[in-house]
Amino acid sequence: MSVHFKKLALIGIGLIGSSIALAARRQGLVEVISIATRRQETLDEARELGLGDIYTLDAAEAVRGADLVILCAPVGAYGALAAAIGPHLEKGAILSDVGSVKEHVVRQVGQHVPPGVSFIPGHPIAGTEHSGPSAGFAELFAGRWCVLTPTEGVAQADTDRLVAFWRAMGSMVECMDAAHHDMVLAITSHIPHLIAYNIVGTADELETVTKSEVIKFSAGGFRDFTRIAASDPVMWRDVFLTNRDAVLEMLGRFLEDLSVLQRAVRMGDGPALEALFTRTRAIRRSIIDAGQDSAAPDFGRPHEQPPIPEPAPVRDHGGGDDA
Amino acid sequence: MSVHFKKLALIGIGLIGSSIALAARRQGLVEVISIATRRQETLDEARELGLGDIYTLDAAEAVRGADLVILCAPVGAYGALAAAIGPHLEKGAILSDVGSVKEHVVRQVGQHVPPGVSFIPGHPIAGTEHSGPSAGFAELFAGRWCVLTPTEGVAQADTDRLVAFWRAMGSMVECMDAAHHDMVLAITSHIPHLIAYNIVGTADELETVTKSEVIKFSAGGFRDFTRIAASDPVMWRDVFLTNRDAVLEMLGRFLEDLSVLQRAVRMGDGPALEALFTRTRAIRRSIIDAGQDSAAPDFGRPHEQPPIPEPAPVRDHGGGDDA
Repeated sequence: MSVHFKKLALIGIGLIGSSIALAARRQGLVEVISIATRRQETLDEARELGLGDIYTLDAAEAVRGADLVILCAPVGAYGALAAAIGPHLEKGAILSDVGSVKEHVVRQVGQHVPPGVSFIPGHPIAGTEHSGPSAGFAELFAGRWCVLTPTEGVAQADTDRLVAFWRAMGSMVECMDAAHHDMVLAITSHIPHLIAYNIVGTADELETVTKSEVIKFSAGGFRDFTRIAASDPVMWRDVFLTNRDAVLEMLGRFLEDLSVLQRAVRMGDGPALEALFTRTRAIRRSIIDAGQDSAAPDFGRPHEQPPIPEPAPVRDHGGGDDA
Repeated sequence: MSVHFKKLALIGIGLIGSSIALAARRQGLVEVISIATRRQETLDEARELGLGDIYTLDAAEAVRGADLVILCAPVGAYGALAAAIGPHLEKGAILSDVGSVKEHVVRQVGQHVPPGVSFIPGHPIAGTEHSGPSAGFAELFAGRWCVLTPTEGVAQADTDRLVAFWRAMGSMVECMDAAHHDMVLAITSHIPHLIAYNIVGTADELETVTKSEVIKFSAGGFRDFTRIAASDPVMWRDVFLTNRDAVLEMLGRFLEDLSVLQRAVRMGDGPALEALFTRTRAIRRSIIDAGQDSAAPDFGRPHEQPPIPEPAPVRDHGGGDDA
């Protein structure tokens, strides 16, 4: 299905918003892009990057005449934003978002959506640990999943248009219930972030191991957690404030399992440890097979391997073959 | 300091052993490399890869005449290996290893080391999630730290030689007490692996979220944990069996902090969440500044970004500017 919108309004222009702007423009999906931000500096940055056609600090102004409006601000700002833009949304427009939680969004935004506007919350499962308008790139969504959670009464044709929009940017799309989305994301995203933030915090406060040692010897595994724990603090604060029930339920499951594992360590139960560590390998393979990660080993190094820094030493013992 | 050994014996030839073989050969640090394995298949693979000069299933045979012996087998096998090779170690030789725990190694191996042999346990903090002889590469240690824990009575000159050996392979080297090593690694490596294994196990057993959903939507953070949780099961079983006390102590700290965080989520304490999530960003920056990770964003994709898979759609609405 081909797709074209006359005016796309992006409310907020961080990593996701700027990537949508670049992808939608490059794929010819929109005629005009209007961008609204809360802060002047962010707006100036977006303008310098040439991400849109219209720039404003007034979200209501940005959505006028737009047939596609996507909230790309932190979820905590949605209620106020929805109240501000609600009266100015054009009849027939599609209103969507990119927030990491969906039931909360339905509650906060839904009440401000006027009749005749199709409210279809969305969540592209894509990102990097970088944030801000300059972090975006057109390929961010390629090969990644986007979840849409159409609200009651939305016309199938509008859902189809939004699905086509995301597919044209390279996404795969799945529609589901908002509550189910929140449960799926709690385990695949929110709990991983919570425990990554937690262990980095723990390591930061030890007395027996210095911070310098933690940093030096981070290549043993800790390093990978710091990447996740460097994600945008405000966005993640909002995730945990707004998906509390699903997060606490999944955290409970995680902690139950961790108690069993802790006991296996304490009792020295080798077979139980090996069985778990073997089982978890299979999931990794499935993720690589599904194209959601690369099988290339990660050394914490970009692209090329660096050369070994020191030259071959001069030998202090005689003879020997060459290297 | 320049360094050269006449015969290097590698007992075990997985990721680390094969990388040592390749790096030591390339940098001209050794004259002859002898390789011993437990299984014939592994030995055949090492021979096909041309990793050494002498191949044997008999560890005692491998160490004869060697002035540097490095145990590169799973730590669980060290006791039996040390008993087998002890009587055959050459006077003046250096005996080392690459195991992830050190106090246990000192206990298990130390008792079999004859007088005149310098026992200097070691641990290169480097690796990938791949294992086996074919996973090795000469640059694995470049820019990474190697910890050495010289035992009592070892001559400084021997420690210096082993330090020089690792430096010549590109490592940075730090010497410390075995007990301190085990505490540092518990937090920087063992606990990260334990909780990664745990969450992947949890996700694998949920009823409310299908395995297929976990895999599809893993790009939200879960994916990063599966890489760690795909590490060698036997090696990691041995780590938890042999560094129990330090692991349980650090796990206790992690769980205390997690209880505080869980409470903040339950109470909806936004400022506490944001404060933690902001603090953890600083550690990430320190790790990048220390050269232990790349600042390049990780998309779970190798090297180049893939192109957006679908062509720009034909428009079904008129006009518009070009992309």
